[in-house]
Amino acid sequence: MSENKIPYKIYLSEDEMPKAWYNLRADMKNKPAPLLNPATLQPMTAQELEGVFCSELVKQELDDTTPFFEIPQEIRDFYKMYRPSPLVRAYCLEEKLQTPAKIYYKFEGNNTSGSHKLNSAIAQAYYAKHQGLKGVTTETGAGQWGTALSMACGYLGLDCRVYMVKCSYEQKPFRREVMRTYGASVTPSPSETTAVGRKILQEHPGTTGSLGCAISEAVEVATSTPGYRYVLGSVLNQVVLHQSIIGLEAKTALDKYGVKPDIIIGCAGGGSNLGGLIAPFMGEKLRGEADYRFIAVEPASCPSLTRGKYAYDFCDTGAVCPLAKMYTLGSGFIPSANHAGGLRYHGMSSTLSQLYHDGYMEAVSVEQTQVFAAAEAFARVEGILPAPESSHAIRVAIDEALKCKETGEEKTILFGLTGTGYFDLYAYQKYNDGQMSDYIPSDEDIAASLSQLPRVD
Amino acid sequence: MSENKIPYKIYLSEDEMPKAWYNLRADMKNKPAPLLNPATLQPMTAQELEGVFCSELVKQELDDTTPFFEIPQEIRDFYKMYRPSPLVRAYCLEEKLQTPAKIYYKFEGNNTSGSHKLNSAIAQAYYAKHQGLKGVTTETGAGQWGTALSMACGYLGLDCRVYMVKCSYEQKPFRREVMRTYGASVTPSPSETTAVGRKILQEHPGTTGSLGCAISEAVEVATSTPGYRYVLGSVLNQVVLHQSIIGLEAKTALDKYGVKPDIIIGCAGGGSNLGGLIAPFMGEKLRGEADYRFIAVEPASCPSLTRGKYAYDFCDTGAVCPLAKMYTLGSGFIPSANHAGGLRYHGMSSTLSQLYHDGYMEAVSVEQTQVFAAAEAFARVEGILPAPESSHAIRVAIDEALKCKETGEEKTILFGLTGTGYFDLYAYQKYNDGQMSDYIPSDEDIAASLSQLPRVD
Repeated sequence: MSENKIPYKIYLSEDEMPKAWYNLRADMKNKPAPLLNPATLQPMTAQELEGVFCSELVKQELDDTTPFFEIPQEIRDFYKMYRPSPLVRAYCLEEKLQTPAKIYYKFEGNNTSGSHKLNSAIAQAYYAKHQGLKGVTTETGAGQWGTALSMACGYLGLDCRVYMVKCSYEQKPFRREVMRTYGASVTPSPSETTAVGRKILQEHPGTTGSLGCAISEAVEVATSTPGYRYVLGSVLNQVVLHQSIIGLEAKTALDKYGVKPDIIIGCAGGGSNLGGLIAPFMGEKLRGEADYRFIAVEPASCPSLTRGKYAYDFCDTGAVCPLAKMYTLGSGFIPSANHAGGLRYHGMSSTLSQLYHDGYMEAVSVEQTQVFAAAEAFARVEGILPAPESSHAIRVAIDEALKCKETGEEKTILFGLTGTGYFDLYAYQKYNDGQMSDYIPSDEDIAASLSQLPRVD
Repeated sequence: MSENKIPYKIYLSEDEMPKAWYNLRADMKNKPAPLLNPATLQPMTAQELEGVFCSELVKQELDDTTPFFEIPQEIRDFYKMYRPSPLVRAYCLEEKLQTPAKIYYKFEGNNTSGSHKLNSAIAQAYYAKHQGLKGVTTETGAGQWGTALSMACGYLGLDCRVYMVKCSYEQKPFRREVMRTYGASVTPSPSETTAVGRKILQEHPGTTGSLGCAISEAVEVATSTPGYRYVLGSVLNQVVLHQSIIGLEAKTALDKYGVKPDIIIGCAGGGSNLGGLIAPFMGEKLRGEADYRFIAVEPASCPSLTRGKYAYDFCDTGAVCPLAKMYTLGSGFIPSANHAGGLRYHGMSSTLSQLYHDGYMEAVSVEQTQVFAAAEAFARVEGILPAPESSHAIRVAIDEALKCKETGEEKTILFGLTGTGYFDLYAYQKYNDGQMSDYIPSDEDIAASLSQLPRVD
C-alpha cells in the first residue's frame, strides 16, 4: 500500500489485537542476570519470590525461554475497554519541522491512568485476584502507575494500597483523588507507617522521596500483611512482558502499511515502556531478521544508563528487595525533584540493561527545559499535551528528525508517547513562568553513590 | 451484521468521516426565532452581527434552510488529529447493571481540551483566521471551551483571550496552565478589565461569576478591539451546526452495525453537545423517517428547560449581546457554585428550545450528588473518569437502563459522554469526602429572576 494512504491514526480491529505477550528474553543469547537474595546473594528461588509476588507472576518473572505467554481472556476483555491504542502518523509535526523524516508515535495516554501503565496493572491485579489474595501494595512516582493499579483493582474488587513519592504527592494532589475515586488508599512516601520509612526519614529529614524509598515501604507492608502481595509498575521482567503489547500492536499496525521504522525511541525510567515498545522489533534484531536503531532517553538529572554502572544493586532504597544486575546510580541515589517523576529511578530493567551492555541499544540523556520546549511545540501542532516523561522521547524524536532535515534522509522514526500531562500542570506552570531549571548531578555525587554498591562477585 | 459482533469500540475510518456538517434547522417546520438587536428589538441583520462575529459564521448562524455545509479541508485535517471519536458499547456497564438494555456512548474526551468543544473551536478559529483577524475573545465555564479554543488558536497562530468564570478559575488553576501552554491569556470573570465586569462586581461583590457575566466581558473586549471578534462555545446555531459531527459519526457507526437507538440522552448546558449528538437522528424524526426519544439532562441547580420560561432574553448578564428566544431562567440568574461549570448557563440553544417547545424532546433535571454517584460507578466499570457535565447524561442513561431491568425491555440507549473529569478532581474530592451538597433554587428565586425578562412583543 502506498505511504500516501497512511491515515493520521491507525487503529487495529479487535481481531487484530495481540492474543499473547512476547517474552523478549527468549531471544536473547545473553540472558538478563537473575535476581539475588539480599541475605544470601544467591539467585532468588521461585519459592522465595512468592513471598513478595503472586505465583503466576513469579513464573513469568523467571521464565527466559518461553517466547509467548497467552493473555487470559479476562485481561483481553479489559484491554478492549481502552485498547488498541492508536499509532499516529505525526503529519503536523513533520510539517512544522519541515523534515523529510516520517514520524510515528504509539500513543498510550487515552485512558484514565493517563499512560501505558494500565497494560501491566490489569495483568498483575488479575493474577492476584486469581490467587485469592485480598489486596496488593505498590509505589507510584508520577502517579500514573498508582492510578492504573487503582483502576485495575477497582474493576476486580481488590484492595489497593499505594505509596506515592512525596514530591509527586505534593505536586499532584488530584492524582490522589483519582486513586481514591477508584477505591485505593494513598500514603506519601517516605512515611511513618513503615519501619523503613521511619528509618529513611530519620537519616534524610525533609527528603522529597524517591521511587526506591516508596518501593521499600510497599514491600514491607505486603510481606507483613496476610493476603497481600507487592506489585511493581516497571523494572521487572514480567512488566516488560506485559508491556510488549505496545510494541506488538505498533508492529502489526506498521506491517499493515508496509512501514519499517529506522529508529525507535522511548523514554526510560525503569524501562517498562521502552522495553514493551521495542520488544518485537528487538526480537527481530536479536534473531538477525532485521536491523533497527533503538534509543533510550533518560533525564540528565537521573542518568542510569549513560552515567551509571552495570552491576548488582538493590532495587529499593531500604535494601529490602532482591538485588538486580542493572545499570544503576546506586540505590542510595536520591535524584533532584525533577518533574518527570516517573523517570526518577536509580536503576533500569535488567533486560534492557543487558541489551544496552551488549550493544543492541543506544542511550542519551536530555535536560528538563529542553524536554518541556519539545513538549510545548508538540502540544501545539499535534494537539496532545504530553507527560513530561513521554516528552523525553519527543525531544529526541524531534532532534533526529531535524538531523534528517540537514542530511535530507527520509528516515522513519517511531517513538513511544507513553502518556498525557494533565496532572503535570504544576511543572508546565514552572516552565511557562520561566522558573524551571536543569540539574545535572556531579561526577562526585554519582561516584559517592556508586561507592555504596553491594559487593557481589 | 449480528449484534454479537459489535466491538467494544467502533472507530470510523478516515474515509467514513463526515465531509459536511448537518444543519438541523433546515428540517424544522417551526424555525428557531431570530436573534434580536438589544437596542431596537428588531431581528439582527448580518451586518450587525458581523460587528461581533466573523462573516462566515454569521452566514451559518442565519441560514436555516441549507441542510449541509461542507467542512473545509483544513478543518477536516485538524479533525483527523483527534477524530473520529469512538462509539463505545458499554458492555461492562451493562454487566454491572444486569440490564437487558444495550448501552452505547459517543466519547468525545480523547483530546487535550477534554471534551467535544474542540469540534467548534477549530471551525470558529479557522473562519477568523481566513477573515484576516488578529485574534478572538471568549468566555469559558468549566474551562473546556477555553482550552479547546486555545488549542485551535495555537495551531493557527491566532491570539486568544479567555474570560473564565471565577469559581472555575479558582477550582481549576491547572486549566489556566493548559491554556497558557497553548499561548492564550486567561482572566477570571467578572474582572476589573471591562466596564461590564466592573459594573457586575459593584452590584454583586463576591460573586463567583457565571457564563453570562463572562460572555459580556468577552464581547465587550471583542467589539472594542480592532481585528478581534467574539466566539462562543455553545448556545448559537453555528455551534450546534459544527457539533453535528458528533451525531453524524455516531449514526454512521451505528448504521454500519444495523443498530437503531430507542433513546438518545445528552447533558444540556447551552445545548452544544446535545444539539450535535441528536442532530441527524432528530432530522429523521422531523422528516418522519424514524422515531426516537430524546432526553436533555440538566442540573437541578440550573434547570432552564424544566423550570425556565420560553421567551426572549439576553444571552449574557450584562445585556450587551443580542436577545435570543429560548428557555431561560433570566439573564440575571446566578446559579449556585455547582461543580458542573459547563452547565451553569441561564438559557438554552434556541434551536433546542424550539424543538423542546414543539414536543420533539424531553427534559429532566438531576441533583449533583446523584450525578457523582453515577460518575463513580461508571468510572469503575468503564475505566473513563467522566466530566461532571457528562455525568448528568450517565445518570439518566443508568436510570433508563434500570427501568429496562424492571420491565425486561431490551432498549438501545445512546448517550453522549462529552468529556473527561481530569480537571474536576476538586469536585470529586468533595464527593469522596462526603462534603458535596445539592442545591435547588426556590420557585421564588426563579420567579424573581424571570420577572426581569426584557419585554418583547
